[in-house]
Amino acid sequence: MLTRIDHVGIACRDLAARIAFYESAFGLTVASMEVNEAQGVREAMLHVADGPAGSSYVQLLEPLGPDTPVGKFLERRGEGVHHIGYGVANVTTALAAIGASGVRLIDERPRHGSMGASIAFLHPADMGGVLTELVQSASAGELA
Amino acid sequence: MLTRIDHVGIACRDLAARIAFYESAFGLTVASMEVNEAQGVREAMLHVADGPAGSSYVQLLEPLGPDTPVGKFLERRGEGVHHIGYGVANVTTALAAIGASGVRLIDERPRHGSMGASIAFLHPADMGGVLTELVQSASAGELA
Repeated sequence: MLTRIDHVGIACRDLAARIAFYESAFGLTVASMEVNEAQGVREAMLHVADGPAGSSYVQLLEPLGPDTPVGKFLERRGEGVHHIGYGVANVTTALAAIGASGVRLIDERPRHGSMGASIAFLHPADMGGVLTELVQSASAGELA
Repeated sequence: MLTRIDHVGIACRDLAARIAFYESAFGLTVASMEVNEAQGVREAMLHVADGPAGSSYVQLLEPLGPDTPVGKFLERRGEGVHHIGYGVANVTTALAAIGASGVRLIDERPRHGSMGASIAFLHPADMGGVLTELVQSASAGELA
């Protein structure tokens, strides 16, 4: 069902500084920058590699305010890995299968993610403490 | 410098149960199981995808006891993402470059990791709270 590790989502307090760090230490380059008002984040996708099922990224997330999911995460846990995103060919099909396996879905239906992707989150309490995102990249088809 | 997201390292209390979960919910398969006494873990590599620079995995980590790095992590943070491993062509070269950029190295020299890889960890305090591992896979050459 999973086609790749799409991205590692990392919460940070200063997006510009964290981008500069990954550029200088690892030579990564910014593929996309967006503000996602619905999720309360300013984010950057830094390209790591290309693969047969799509590319993989480091996703850096800076909260738009303290009362957002990433803002609360930073308050509670500090900077670090916020979630893991896996590629799937079809997020609607994957959600149905995973929901049927008993995992609680944060998103019953896909919503819009980075770079035009259709995404959905799975509940970390049913994922061994890992906030897990399914990602159908834009090139894999439109959000229904 | 980074060739891929090699693996997501996830700390768990019950390795067999967590493997069974990833098999049933996501259809992943176990590529390797090992005990790494030096790191104090029992671990499984679950295959996610293949790419031009190597494969990517979910790595599940169960501590051999409470007084190990992963045991202490579980006590402090609970189950969840423990570290991120990125592929590099040559871990010795990569360590030198990253050390020169000012990032503190947990491992000044590579050591043995999963599946015959040569690995080294970078200090999370200099990596925005992310324990970061560099991975030169066994097929990319021997540990010097």
